[in-house]
Amino acid sequence: MSATSVVELQDVLLVTIQGELTDEDAMALQEELTTNVARSSARGVLIDVSGLDLVDSFLARTLHDIAGASALLAAETVVVGMRPEVAITLVELGLTLPGLGTALTVADGLDRLNGSARRR
Amino acid sequence: MSATSVVELQDVLLVTIQGELTDEDAMALQEELTTNVARSSARGVLIDVSGLDLVDSFLARTLHDIAGASALLAAETVVVGMRPEVAITLVELGLTLPGLGTALTVADGLDRLNGSARRR
Repeated sequence: MSATSVVELQDVLLVTIQGELTDEDAMALQEELTTNVARSSARGVLIDVSGLDLVDSFLARTLHDIAGASALLAAETVVVGMRPEVAITLVELGLTLPGLGTALTVADGLDRLNGSARRR
Repeated sequence: MSATSVVELQDVLLVTIQGELTDEDAMALQEELTTNVARSSARGVLIDVSGLDLVDSFLARTLHDIAGASALLAAETVVVGMRPEVAITLVELGLTLPGLGTALTVADGLDRLNGSARRR
Protein backbone atom coordinates (compact mmCIF):
# COMPACT_ATOMS: atom_id res chain seq x y z
CA MET A 1 0.00 0.00 0.00
CA SER A 2 3.03 2.28 -0.20
CA ALA A 3 1.88 3.83 -3.46
CA THR A 4 -1.36 5.24 -2.05
CA SER A 5 -2.35 7.53 0.78
CA VAL A 6 -5.78 8.14 2.27
CA VAL A 7 -6.55 11.41 4.05
CA GLU A 8 -9.83 12.43 5.68
CA LEU A 9 -10.96 15.93 4.69
CA GLN A 10 -14.14 16.56 6.68
CA ASP A 11 -16.74 14.35 4.98
CA VAL A 12 -14.50 13.29 2.12
CA LEU A 13 -11.80 10.63 1.85
CA LEU A 14 -9.04 11.94 -0.38
CA VAL A 15 -7.08 9.09 -1.95
CA THR A 16 -3.85 9.89 -3.72
CA ILE A 17 -2.32 7.27 -5.97
CA GLN A 18 1.36 8.14 -6.27
CA GLY A 19 2.64 5.44 -8.54
CA GLU A 20 1.64 2.38 -10.50
CA LEU A 21 -0.36 -0.12 -8.45
CA THR A 22 -0.02 -3.87 -8.64
CA ASP A 23 -3.28 -5.81 -8.76
CA GLU A 24 -2.79 -6.70 -5.08
CA ASP A 25 -2.30 -3.02 -4.19
CA ALA A 26 -5.51 -2.18 -6.04
CA MET A 27 -7.52 -4.83 -4.19
CA ALA A 28 -6.05 -3.84 -0.83
CA LEU A 29 -6.95 -0.22 -1.61
CA GLN A 30 -10.54 -1.22 -2.36
CA GLU A 31 -10.89 -3.07 0.92
CA GLU A 32 -9.20 -0.33 2.96
CA LEU A 33 -11.32 2.38 1.36
CA THR A 34 -14.63 0.58 1.76
CA THR A 35 -13.94 -0.11 5.43
CA ASN A 36 -12.88 3.52 5.86
CA VAL A 37 -16.05 4.88 4.26
CA ALA A 38 -18.20 2.93 6.72
CA ARG A 39 -16.04 3.83 9.74
CA SER A 40 -15.74 7.55 8.99
CA SER A 41 -19.28 8.07 7.62
CA ALA A 42 -17.67 9.74 4.61
CA ARG A 43 -20.06 11.31 2.11
CA GLY A 44 -17.61 11.15 -0.73
CA VAL A 45 -14.44 9.50 -2.02
CA LEU A 46 -12.07 11.56 -4.14
CA ILE A 47 -9.44 9.55 -6.00
CA ASP A 48 -6.54 11.53 -7.39
CA VAL A 49 -4.97 9.61 -10.27
CA SER A 50 -2.70 12.41 -11.49
CA GLY A 51 0.33 10.36 -10.45
CA LEU A 52 -0.56 7.59 -12.87
CA ASP A 53 0.86 7.32 -16.39
CA LEU A 54 -1.23 4.25 -17.05
CA VAL A 55 -4.57 2.85 -15.90
CA ASP A 56 -4.89 -0.80 -16.88
CA SER A 57 -8.14 -2.70 -17.13
CA PHE A 58 -7.74 -4.21 -13.67
CA LEU A 59 -7.33 -0.81 -12.03
CA ALA A 60 -10.24 0.58 -14.08
CA ARG A 61 -12.38 -2.28 -12.81
CA THR A 62 -11.21 -1.72 -9.26
CA LEU A 63 -12.12 1.99 -9.50
CA HIS A 64 -15.54 0.94 -10.75
CA ASP A 65 -15.94 -1.54 -7.86
CA ILE A 66 -14.82 1.08 -5.32
CA ALA A 67 -17.51 3.41 -6.66
CA GLY A 68 -20.12 0.64 -6.47
CA ALA A 69 -19.27 -0.37 -2.90
CA SER A 70 -19.08 3.28 -1.80
CA ALA A 71 -22.50 3.94 -3.33
CA LEU A 72 -23.91 1.06 -1.29
CA LEU A 73 -22.49 2.84 1.75
CA ALA A 74 -24.02 6.14 0.64
CA ALA A 75 -20.81 7.80 -0.56
CA GLU A 76 -20.20 9.26 -4.01
CA THR A 77 -16.91 8.58 -5.81
CA VAL A 78 -15.15 11.11 -8.02
CA VAL A 79 -11.92 10.51 -9.95
CA VAL A 80 -9.76 13.58 -10.49
CA GLY A 81 -6.56 14.55 -12.25
CA MET A 82 -6.63 12.00 -15.04
CA ARG A 83 -4.03 12.70 -17.72
CA PRO A 84 -5.33 13.15 -21.26
CA GLU A 85 -3.27 10.22 -22.56
CA VAL A 86 -4.70 7.98 -19.84
CA ALA A 87 -8.23 9.04 -20.80
CA ILE A 88 -7.50 8.25 -24.46
CA THR A 89 -6.13 4.81 -23.59
CA LEU A 90 -9.13 4.00 -21.36
CA VAL A 91 -11.58 4.93 -24.09
CA GLU A 92 -9.65 2.87 -26.62
CA LEU A 93 -9.94 -0.11 -24.26
CA GLY A 94 -13.69 0.54 -24.00
CA LEU A 95 -13.34 1.41 -20.30
CA THR A 96 -15.40 4.55 -19.89
CA LEU A 97 -15.83 4.11 -16.12
CA PRO A 98 -19.64 4.24 -15.90
CA GLY A 99 -20.91 5.16 -12.45
CA LEU A 100 -17.80 7.15 -11.63
CA GLY A 101 -17.93 10.91 -11.35
CA THR A 102 -15.01 12.86 -12.76
CA ALA A 103 -13.50 16.28 -12.19
CA LEU A 104 -10.33 17.90 -13.46
CA THR A 105 -8.77 18.97 -10.18
CA VAL A 106 -9.01 18.08 -6.50
CA ALA A 107 -10.70 21.43 -5.83
CA ASP A 108 -13.34 20.82 -8.53
CA GLY A 109 -13.90 17.33 -7.17
CA LEU A 110 -14.41 18.64 -3.63
CA ASP A 111 -16.86 21.25 -4.93
CA ARG A 112 -18.76 18.55 -6.71
CA LEU A 113 -18.94 16.28 -3.67
CA ASN A 114 -19.89 19.13 -1.32
CA GLY A 115 -22.56 20.25 -3.77
CA SER A 116 -24.11 16.78 -3.82
CA ALA A 117 -23.98 16.56 -0.03
CA ARG A 118 -25.79 19.90 0.32
CA ARG A 119 -28.49 18.84 -2.12
CA ARG A 120 -29.30 15.82 0.02
CA MET B 1 -40.95 -13.91 9.50
CA SER B 2 -39.22 -14.15 12.88
CA ALA B 3 -36.01 -12.61 11.56
CA THR B 4 -37.59 -9.29 10.56
CA SER B 5 -39.61 -6.60 12.26
CA VAL B 6 -41.60 -3.75 10.73
CA VAL B 7 -42.29 -0.58 12.73
CA GLU B 8 -44.22 2.49 11.57
CA LEU B 9 -42.41 5.76 12.31
CA GLN B 10 -44.78 8.51 11.17
CA ASP B 11 -44.60 8.33 7.36
CA VAL B 12 -41.83 5.77 7.24
CA LEU B 13 -41.85 1.99 7.59
CA LEU B 14 -38.69 0.93 9.42
CA VAL B 15 -37.79 -2.65 8.60
CA THR B 16 -35.11 -4.35 10.67
CA ILE B 17 -33.59 -7.57 9.41
CA GLN B 18 -32.12 -9.31 12.44
CA GLY B 19 -30.65 -12.43 10.93
CA GLU B 20 -30.17 -14.32 7.71
CA LEU B 21 -33.38 -14.69 5.70
CA THR B 22 -34.40 -17.77 3.78
CA ASP B 23 -35.75 -17.15 0.29
CA GLU B 24 -39.29 -17.74 1.65
CA ASP B 25 -38.70 -15.17 4.42
CA ALA B 26 -37.51 -12.66 1.82
CA MET B 27 -40.58 -13.19 -0.35
CA ALA B 28 -42.92 -12.98 2.66
CA LEU B 29 -41.20 -9.75 3.70
CA GLN B 30 -41.72 -8.28 0.25
CA GLU B 31 -45.42 -9.11 0.30
CA GLU B 32 -45.94 -7.86 3.86
CA LEU B 33 -44.07 -4.65 3.16
CA THR B 34 -45.84 -3.84 -0.07
CA THR B 35 -49.26 -4.40 1.54
CA ASN B 36 -48.16 -2.27 4.50
CA VAL B 37 -46.99 0.61 2.28
CA ALA B 38 -50.41 0.78 0.61
CA ARG B 39 -52.34 0.43 3.89
CA SER B 40 -50.33 2.97 5.87
CA SER B 41 -49.77 5.50 3.04
CA ALA B 42 -46.08 5.41 3.95
CA ARG B 43 -43.83 7.84 2.08
CA GLY B 44 -40.72 5.82 2.67
CA VAL B 45 -39.36 2.39 3.50
CA LEU B 46 -36.14 2.17 5.51
CA ILE B 47 -34.52 -1.26 5.51
CA ASP B 48 -31.83 -1.80 8.16
CA VAL B 49 -29.49 -4.59 7.05
CA SER B 50 -26.84 -4.06 9.75
CA GLY B 51 -27.73 -7.47 11.21
CA LEU B 52 -26.71 -9.24 8.03
CA ASP B 53 -23.26 -10.74 7.47
CA LEU B 54 -24.23 -11.79 3.99
CA VAL B 55 -26.58 -10.57 1.28
CA ASP B 56 -27.05 -13.23 -1.38
CA SER B 57 -28.28 -12.63 -4.90
CA PHE B 58 -31.86 -13.63 -4.02
CA LEU B 59 -32.05 -11.12 -1.17
CA ALA B 60 -30.41 -8.44 -3.34
CA ARG B 61 -33.09 -9.07 -5.96
CA THR B 62 -35.83 -8.98 -3.34
CA LEU B 63 -34.55 -5.63 -2.03
CA HIS B 64 -34.59 -4.35 -5.60
CA ASP B 65 -38.16 -5.65 -6.09
CA ILE B 66 -39.31 -4.11 -2.80
CA ALA B 67 -37.92 -0.76 -3.98
CA GLY B 68 -39.67 -1.16 -7.33
CA ALA B 69 -43.05 -2.05 -5.81
CA SER B 70 -42.74 0.73 -3.21
CA ALA B 71 -41.92 3.26 -5.93
CA LEU B 72 -45.13 2.25 -7.74
CA LEU B 73 -46.95 3.03 -4.47
CA ALA B 74 -45.16 6.39 -4.19
CA ALA B 75 -42.75 5.41 -1.43
CA GLU B 76 -38.97 5.72 -1.60
CA THR B 77 -36.80 2.86 -0.33
CA VAL B 78 -33.48 3.38 1.45
CA VAL B 79 -31.18 0.61 2.65
CA VAL B 80 -29.08 1.48 5.72
CA GLY B 81 -26.35 -0.06 7.84
CA MET B 82 -24.69 -2.22 5.22
CA ARG B 83 -21.38 -3.66 6.36
CA PRO B 84 -18.35 -2.86 4.19
CA GLU B 85 -17.64 -6.54 3.53
CA VAL B 86 -21.24 -7.03 2.38
CA ALA B 87 -20.88 -4.05 0.03
CA ILE B 88 -17.67 -5.48 -1.46
CA THR B 89 -19.27 -8.90 -1.99
CA LEU B 90 -22.32 -7.38 -3.67
CA VAL B 91 -20.17 -5.35 -6.04
CA GLU B 92 -18.07 -8.41 -6.88
CA LEU B 93 -21.30 -10.24 -7.74
CA GLY B 94 -22.29 -7.31 -9.95
CA LEU B 95 -25.24 -6.50 -7.66
CA THR B 96 -25.05 -2.76 -7.20
CA LEU B 97 -28.72 -2.38 -6.24
CA PRO B 98 -29.74 0.23 -8.82
CA GLY B 99 -32.84 2.18 -7.86
CA LEU B 100 -32.21 1.73 -4.15
CA GLY B 101 -31.17 4.67 -2.02
CA THR B 102 -28.50 4.09 0.58
CA ALA B 103 -27.52 5.73 3.85
CA LEU B 104 -25.06 4.73 6.54
CA THR B 105 -27.31 4.91 9.60
CA VAL B 106 -31.01 4.82 10.41
CA ALA B 107 -30.83 8.52 11.35
CA ASP B 108 -29.23 9.46 8.01
CA GLY B 109 -31.81 7.36 6.20
CA LEU B 110 -34.70 9.10 7.98
CA ASP B 111 -33.17 12.49 7.15
CA ARG B 112 -32.94 11.47 3.54
CA LEU B 113 -36.54 10.24 3.35
CA ASN B 114 -37.87 13.30 5.18
CA GLY B 115 -35.82 15.56 2.91
CA SER B 116 -37.31 13.92 -0.20
CA ALA B 117 -40.82 14.18 1.24
CA ARG B 118 -40.32 17.90 1.86
CA ARG B 119 -39.07 18.50 -1.67
CA ARG B 120 -42.23 16.99 -3.14
